[in-house]
Amino acid sequence: MRPLRLAADGWSVEVLDQARLPHEEVVVRLTTPDEVARAIRGMQVRGAPLIGIAAAYGVCLSLRADPSDAALETTLAALRATRPTAVNLRWALDRMAAAVRGAAPGDRAPRAYAEAARIAEEEVAACRAIGAAGLGLLRDLAGAAGADRPLGVLTHCNAGWLATLEYGTALAPVYRAHEEGIPLHVWVDETRPRGQGWLTAWELGRAGVPHTVVADTAAAWLFREGLVRVVLVGADRIARNGDVCNKIGTRLVALAAREAGVPFYVAAPSSTIDWAAADGAAIPIERRAPEELGDVRGWAADGSLVTVRLAPPGTQVLNPAFDVTPATDIAGIITERGVADASEAALARLFPGHP
Amino acid sequence: MRPLRLAADGWSVEVLDQARLPHEEVVVRLTTPDEVARAIRGMQVRGAPLIGIAAAYGVCLSLRADPSDAALETTLAALRATRPTAVNLRWALDRMAAAVRGAAPGDRAPRAYAEAARIAEEEVAACRAIGAAGLGLLRDLAGAAGADRPLGVLTHCNAGWLATLEYGTALAPVYRAHEEGIPLHVWVDETRPRGQGWLTAWELGRAGVPHTVVADTAAAWLFREGLVRVVLVGADRIARNGDVCNKIGTRLVALAAREAGVPFYVAAPSSTIDWAAADGAAIPIERRAPEELGDVRGWAADGSLVTVRLAPPGTQVLNPAFDVTPATDIAGIITERGVADASEAALARLFPGHP
Repeated sequence: MRPLRLAADGWSVEVLDQARLPHEEVVVRLTTPDEVARAIRGMQVRGAPLIGIAAAYGVCLSLRADPSDAALETTLAALRATRPTAVNLRWALDRMAAAVRGAAPGDRAPRAYAEAARIAEEEVAACRAIGAAGLGLLRDLAGAAGADRPLGVLTHCNAGWLATLEYGTALAPVYRAHEEGIPLHVWVDETRPRGQGWLTAWELGRAGVPHTVVADTAAAWLFREGLVRVVLVGADRIARNGDVCNKIGTRLVALAAREAGVPFYVAAPSSTIDWAAADGAAIPIERRAPEELGDVRGWAADGSLVTVRLAPPGTQVLNPAFDVTPATDIAGIITERGVADASEAALARLFPGHP
Repeated sequence: MRPLRLAADGWSVEVLDQARLPHEEVVVRLTTPDEVARAIRGMQVRGAPLIGIAAAYGVCLSLRADPSDAALETTLAALRATRPTAVNLRWALDRMAAAVRGAAPGDRAPRAYAEAARIAEEEVAACRAIGAAGLGLLRDLAGAAGADRPLGVLTHCNAGWLATLEYGTALAPVYRAHEEGIPLHVWVDETRPRGQGWLTAWELGRAGVPHTVVADTAAAWLFREGLVRVVLVGADRIARNGDVCNKIGTRLVALAAREAGVPFYVAAPSSTIDWAAADGAAIPIERRAPEELGDVRGWAADGSLVTVRLAPPGTQVLNPAFDVTPATDIAGIITERGVADASEAALARLFPGHP
């Protein structure tokens, strides 16, 4: 199962609607770049790597309908504007543009579909490699923790296969360790306001990985109780100095981890590294609609799906979507080429010749 | 308006049902100690000082029905067992026991009502004094911040008049500053799982104090943006060394405040100080029902009140209700006798001769 795939018609795109998960499993068919843009903005498609792949297919849909330069540039600009923080979006669009700009109009759509498929498969391969690199880490930690109790892993947001195509980023090592029989227990932050922790719980539940959801407020308590031996999170953009921008609340987890002496790791493919961003201060932080905090969707007692408003009438709400964890608080960045220290030198060593 | 008062009949107790706020304003009448115990356990009555006052009236209701020693001891034990963390409960019950134990059965109920009223009015006076002491602090900070923008105050949970009887603890200085015309803006943590931030928003909205609700995950972002100049929270139990146990998530706010160099203050009456607890490790942390995280209540589109389930079926949830912030991360404790450093020596100086 993948959260995005080419439909049986060979050209339109089917996505698992993540705005309706975990309450409903609905597949939505996208046929135009506008529909792709809406799906990204509305977080029907979410997770930095998956946003990039979806945007790539948005370019395909655009070129299939109109291979002109004008249409291409309009689509690139529209997709680029959907969400500001995850750099994978820009990265994928740049690759798509480079793949088709020089081509004759008639060649553009086929080239685009080929490039989008390449991006998708490269991201899948990257997630597998991240899983392999992170597996070693978890195996070492599990050994150090002793065989008497499972390895406690804390994660924030959803960085599983829903956010990529397979395995995930932060969850790839978890899935691999589970496959290898390493006993672990995943502590899942709810991740308000959007509650991606419930998506992570849904994913882990399907895979049979033991897990417990906690409120975001519980992190320091978990550390104090000694329940967490390692933190694993994904990333939406990594500056070249190793500062990591990820889902709002990640910074608090990192502070609590540092206080407790628990290693804090970030897992991300190189498509998430923004070599042009000198540090975290250069990364734009998206602010999203207040309704994401004030309104919550779930099952009513009769099993129907209902959105309820928590906020008293007239309450002002602010909803920043990401925060930045400085490189100094990160034990390492798990990439498709192995684990790097969170530093410019270490990242450049793993990825020589980057732009 | 008070969240608890003696009814017009002169003996039963009326409480504003805080489990139904901010969605409904319903007053519930309590006529037996069992009803009081249920109201405390179910958080219809909540907030450390208010729990103490409610428990005191629970003893009154018990003695009115049966002034015997046996009934008294049963009631004291039952009320003491309702919630483990807030020490005001034990403190109030100890005072009630001391006030009535030596009395003849016929005198016990009137003595109890008199003592409960004394406790209530002392707590009101304490909150007023906390407001006065905290006002000076906020005035200084507002002056230092410059007159060009309001003083940003971050609070977690609800420590307003709902949690006490009037003014509140952490919010008392806020209300006083607002009355004095000091421009301020309160950043209100949602405070999952129970969402007491929505109660704080409801309170502040009624009083016309400018405020914005944010997800608990947003604290580090707020500090980074320079929006917060001071943190003010309440407490459920303060160890004699100044360690503070408060609503889950408080520790994360304190870590983020320390990182940002923003002073973190705790406001509490002396009834919240547990002189028998050497430090935070001695304070029991309540774990509450998982449904508090998995289920959420709010207004549906048609205005009806609906509880919806967020958690996928079978999801395991853990719900610790409090955490401990060490004295070293606390700039000061605002009490009814002024602001003390968070240390045994400073607390003992303010409250000489404590047990």
